[in-house]
Amino acid sequence: MTKSQALQSNLDVDYVISYRFAKTADKSRAIAQFEKLCEAIAHVGLQTEVRNGDSHSVLLFVRVASDEHLYGEVYRSRVRDWIHGVRAAAPPKETREALEAEPLYEAERLRIIYQLITNPSSEGGAAITPKEGEWEGVESIFALHDHAYNKDWIKKWTSSYFLKTEDLDDIRNRLGEKIAFYFAFTQSYFTFLMFPAAFGLFSWLVLGYFSPIYGVVSAVWCTVFTEYWRHQETDLAVRWGVRGVSKIDVRHRDFAPEKTVTDPVTGEKVGFFPSSKRFQRQLLQVPFALTVVVCLGTVIATCFGIEVFISEVYNGPLKSVLVFIPTGILTTVNPILTTILTQFATRLTQFENYETQSAYDTALTRKIFVMNFILSYLGIFLTAFVYVPFGTIIVPYLDVFNVAVRPFAEDEKQLHHTSTSSWSINPDRLRKQVIYFTVTAQLVNLGMELIVPYLKRRGFAWFKKMQSERAAKNGTASASIAANDPPEDAAFLERVRKEAELDVYDVNTDIREMVLQFGYLSLFSVVWPLTAVSFLINDWFELRADAMKICVEMRRPTPWRADTIGPWLDSLTFLTWLGSLTTSTLVYMFHNSNKGPDGNPSNIQLWALLLTVFFAEHLFIILRITIRHVISKIDSPGLQKERRERFMVRQQYFEENLNSLNKLPTLSGSGEEINRKSLEEDARESSLRATTPESRFWSRQRDWKESAAVAKSLIEKAHFASSPESKKEL
Amino acid sequence: MTKSQALQSNLDVDYVISYRFAKTADKSRAIAQFEKLCEAIAHVGLQTEVRNGDSHSVLLFVRVASDEHLYGEVYRSRVRDWIHGVRAAAPPKETREALEAEPLYEAERLRIIYQLITNPSSEGGAAITPKEGEWEGVESIFALHDHAYNKDWIKKWTSSYFLKTEDLDDIRNRLGEKIAFYFAFTQSYFTFLMFPAAFGLFSWLVLGYFSPIYGVVSAVWCTVFTEYWRHQETDLAVRWGVRGVSKIDVRHRDFAPEKTVTDPVTGEKVGFFPSSKRFQRQLLQVPFALTVVVCLGTVIATCFGIEVFISEVYNGPLKSVLVFIPTGILTTVNPILTTILTQFATRLTQFENYETQSAYDTALTRKIFVMNFILSYLGIFLTAFVYVPFGTIIVPYLDVFNVAVRPFAEDEKQLHHTSTSSWSINPDRLRKQVIYFTVTAQLVNLGMELIVPYLKRRGFAWFKKMQSERAAKNGTASASIAANDPPEDAAFLERVRKEAELDVYDVNTDIREMVLQFGYLSLFSVVWPLTAVSFLINDWFELRADAMKICVEMRRPTPWRADTIGPWLDSLTFLTWLGSLTTSTLVYMFHNSNKGPDGNPSNIQLWALLLTVFFAEHLFIILRITIRHVISKIDSPGLQKERRERFMVRQQYFEENLNSLNKLPTLSGSGEEINRKSLEEDARESSLRATTPESRFWSRQRDWKESAAVAKSLIEKAHFASSPESKKEL
Repeated sequence: MTKSQALQSNLDVDYVISYRFAKTADKSRAIAQFEKLCEAIAHVGLQTEVRNGDSHSVLLFVRVASDEHLYGEVYRSRVRDWIHGVRAAAPPKETREALEAEPLYEAERLRIIYQLITNPSSEGGAAITPKEGEWEGVESIFALHDHAYNKDWIKKWTSSYFLKTEDLDDIRNRLGEKIAFYFAFTQSYFTFLMFPAAFGLFSWLVLGYFSPIYGVVSAVWCTVFTEYWRHQETDLAVRWGVRGVSKIDVRHRDFAPEKTVTDPVTGEKVGFFPSSKRFQRQLLQVPFALTVVVCLGTVIATCFGIEVFISEVYNGPLKSVLVFIPTGILTTVNPILTTILTQFATRLTQFENYETQSAYDTALTRKIFVMNFILSYLGIFLTAFVYVPFGTIIVPYLDVFNVAVRPFAEDEKQLHHTSTSSWSINPDRLRKQVIYFTVTAQLVNLGMELIVPYLKRRGFAWFKKMQSERAAKNGTASASIAANDPPEDAAFLERVRKEAELDVYDVNTDIREMVLQFGYLSLFSVVWPLTAVSFLINDWFELRADAMKICVEMRRPTPWRADTIGPWLDSLTFLTWLGSLTTSTLVYMFHNSNKGPDGNPSNIQLWALLLTVFFAEHLFIILRITIRHVISKIDSPGLQKERRERFMVRQQYFEENLNSLNKLPTLSGSGEEINRKSLEEDARESSLRATTPESRFWSRQRDWKESAAVAKSLIEKAHFASSPESKKEL
Repeated sequence: MTKSQALQSNLDVDYVISYRFAKTADKSRAIAQFEKLCEAIAHVGLQTEVRNGDSHSVLLFVRVASDEHLYGEVYRSRVRDWIHGVRAAAPPKETREALEAEPLYEAERLRIIYQLITNPSSEGGAAITPKEGEWEGVESIFALHDHAYNKDWIKKWTSSYFLKTEDLDDIRNRLGEKIAFYFAFTQSYFTFLMFPAAFGLFSWLVLGYFSPIYGVVSAVWCTVFTEYWRHQETDLAVRWGVRGVSKIDVRHRDFAPEKTVTDPVTGEKVGFFPSSKRFQRQLLQVPFALTVVVCLGTVIATCFGIEVFISEVYNGPLKSVLVFIPTGILTTVNPILTTILTQFATRLTQFENYETQSAYDTALTRKIFVMNFILSYLGIFLTAFVYVPFGTIIVPYLDVFNVAVRPFAEDEKQLHHTSTSSWSINPDRLRKQVIYFTVTAQLVNLGMELIVPYLKRRGFAWFKKMQSERAAKNGTASASIAANDPPEDAAFLERVRKEAELDVYDVNTDIREMVLQFGYLSLFSVVWPLTAVSFLINDWFELRADAMKICVEMRRPTPWRADTIGPWLDSLTFLTWLGSLTTSTLVYMFHNSNKGPDGNPSNIQLWALLLTVFFAEHLFIILRITIRHVISKIDSPGLQKERRERFMVRQQYFEENLNSLNKLPTLSGSGEEINRKSLEEDARESSLRATTPESRFWSRQRDWKESAAVAKSLIEKAHFASSPESKKEL
């Protein structure tokens, strides 16, 4: 098999399980554990093949033993969906028929097999949990890339300006709904960006910076986009048949019940953890948030202070070198702090002890959003709302840094120059900072996403090459891993070993990146209206780069289902709302001079500022209600499809039940006149026989004709009677 | 039959249809129309009896011809509920069984019969629409009071302090869910009021007026109550088995489709009215709201001005008389304006052309809320936010009223006294006004609710007595309506004629009253913390008075279903939110002096005020999110019941489907070892025969035991190989 052939075919392999035994000191335990693994896998109906992996690992290839087996599993999964309300109608009971009507797509197949491997045995899975508990040796479970498809995908995308819904369907079929939702979101965002990009350009040319008109348009756009996406998300979920999957409760693996209670609903014994206790634990989020603000805030504010001092106040020696100090601190301290805080957030979320996976994810995402919010926006907030208005008051205090600088001073005179008396704030600082975050940082980020994994991969390959060369020199066997391969599988196995070394793709990181980008637009784009232009260009590449990243830099991701981008939607809503506050404040402060209050807070009329913000916020809230209302009226193919399906099901039920209904006597319907009449007759006759007041009351008139006749006489009499009276009254 | 007997029994009458023919000039047309009415009624399986009504009317008594008929109708209604998701499970197909498992309650019976009479014939009804179209002669369709029950009800309520859930169940069984929801809401509100009443008393004694502590506690309480009711509402809806009924679309009778389109969902031809056009029409709500504000606002503000002028500035002649002018204007002009504006609101809502009854109701309720909001609160708003802060600036302009007063002046000197130089604002005005609205006005209102209908009834009776006496003197026949009655029915018929004259009960008016009362508490109770005490006492009587009103003053209401108090819940939420603004403003302005800014706006630090409001509002929003989150965690019997029912249904479905599933081969399960093995064998053998790369790859290992064996050798080899290497590296 040649190398290109190896890339063409996956040899029917569904999943590869990489088992690393180096960590297990005891050889026999490793062997026993692997035997257990093979048995567990075979037990759920999967076929196995073992090949040699990289140093100290074994690769277990897995495929479904027979299609009939898989179909049963697919049917079970679909019935479960139907019962949870994800599907409107139950799947046909004949499996073959069901699969013909609705063919299995690749992501569904891979998801089902993955669940078969990892689900607990109570749910019919093999309960293999990578890197956890007894399966610590299982390093990863991954599917193999479909290189032919990937090549086509990248080629198609890099040669087209827009992605169509079919392209998204394609991703969904291959990589699952969760990743497809990320691409759909980014594509929607990209399309929507065209308007603010165009208007931003116009605004930049005609209206200038800090234009209130731009501010209003931008706020409207952000709201429309957020609400449109909320609508679009539902539509896509229906299109992909996953609406409601987020409501299927998947138990969180680490959930530790406090006690066992009998579920009042199902009557089963279930683990129980009181919400009140969880709420108490959730209150720890407040000190956590404060810690995050203080830790990250201190670092950022200190660096900000040093930077302002060095670049604007200080003009002693080594200025050109010292300028890089804050960047140095930020790039070293921040990642460390972030890692520590993320670990802390994870621990805290685990401590909060959520029962379901989705609740856990939501809670963790919220915490991560808070951290990223501070990391991304605090710098600009400091410039806009501290440096510019309070600069002249605060900057003199930055002289404390003089102490640190003193050793470098060549003579006293230089230090004297650093006095802040002649200092005035740098009016361009805010704009430069926004441009840095919206252009430079985005580009750097995009580059990093592609280049860092590439370098990592290269470095790793080089290291291994060196190692094996040395080993070859020493004549040890570890160099001969590939040499032991059957020659016809060699190329294929080499490829698999490479894929096993790749990183795991986390779609949340990419969504987060987009949401934070949206934040710059919503919060600060009034500072520099070209923001959207930069994002538009960036995101065109971002979409393609992410596709490439998934294909080349990452292991093939396990396809998961989702019906939303999750709690990030709340983050979007929050950022839009906060944007109404920041935009109005910025417009108020900077609109006249383009320079802001020149570091002197007395230049701001606080009441006018607050009044502006107050009105802006409430107008925004009204606007959002209106836009949400209008968008909710938009009908979409997805929603129509859902309604149609539900209608069909309802109609079917109705017909089934109406059959039995028709046997019941009906009250209406003209065909049963006689029957009804005879019934009335019966009722009347039985009444006559009895002598209760009721029966006497109801027995006076035989049927409706008699009633009408009585009424006729009454009306005639009344008319007769009233006529003379009315005459008299005249 | 004696009078007391007549009150004891309804003689099996389900509904009485009062047909008034006086308006129909043509006698024969009236007769023909009545005949048609009898036929239509009989056609849907109802038995009829005709008796003479009051002058120019005929009473048509209606009852279900046979129970079997009714059961079919009940079953149909329950199946419809199930299909719309109101019921978790389909009712058993055997009607008798279904009715034994879940007996028909009176409200359900009456509702079904009422719908049978009024529903369009396409839905199996007789299509009798009172006072509309061809049925203009049908004045009313009403059920007869159950006097024995009513007596017990009033007795029970007036002798107990609290209402239990069973009491509410009782109302629901008799009067339907819509009215039961009103009583449940008022009862919940009453129970909740005890806390602010106690705290208000404490606050009044210890903290004084305008206490920030009281303000915060009140805001928290309002939020907790609103959110708790939202939760409670769902619980009750489940308890009463009506959850989701508000989502069953009932077509609005006056909906005028623009064109007929084919429904993409059902494929039927349906009337269509574009939402965009409706939205354009809805935009008319903005000028409508402005008109309401201007009209009512002008009247209220003018009266306010006159009142301030006369009571505080003017001290000329006739002061004691003139003081009543504003009250006079308000009590005459406001009801007229309200009537006109309500008509306008109804027209506008009709013009907006809603497709469903619920959308129509919501839209109308919103408009009515806006009107009532202004009527109820604008006066206090003017005092608090115009009179107190800007009094000294505005009051001098009130001298314009001098012109009107001049004719009454006895000498010039008196008028000179009216100069405003010595004037200062009356610091008690705000409190007095709040006390007026929360005590006096509530009492007056309560009295009016009971006394006005009583007087009306009395006056009417007196008028008729006079008329009949006069008629008797003149010897005309109209006096002898009762004389024509069969003697044994006479007392009964007299009672029915009286009930036919009563007013129609509109539960929305009562809910509105409660919501507006809640508004005073939320918006202004910080002015006078005893507000809740007054409401607590008032509402104890209100609950009983309303019960009495329904029993005595009103026709028996047709029982309708509901699963919520509807758009009033939004009004509560809005008032709570607005309360956070007004309370913080009031506390800020009045906290120090208890007098407020003394009519001089410069006494207010606008920025501090705005900052206070800004923080208060955002704290409130965070508070609401937290409370909503906490309350959502509270489990309740109703929700448990619902989950249990859904679970049972799901389990049943699952079992039904699993039966067919078990026939399918399963991938997991240890019982099929042999089967699976043989399948694997087959797969392997067929692979051996073929010679594709796939088959060769998968054919190397026979089963999982061989895989494990291969792995064993690989691991052993690797360990062997790595050992010397690791030694060398040391």
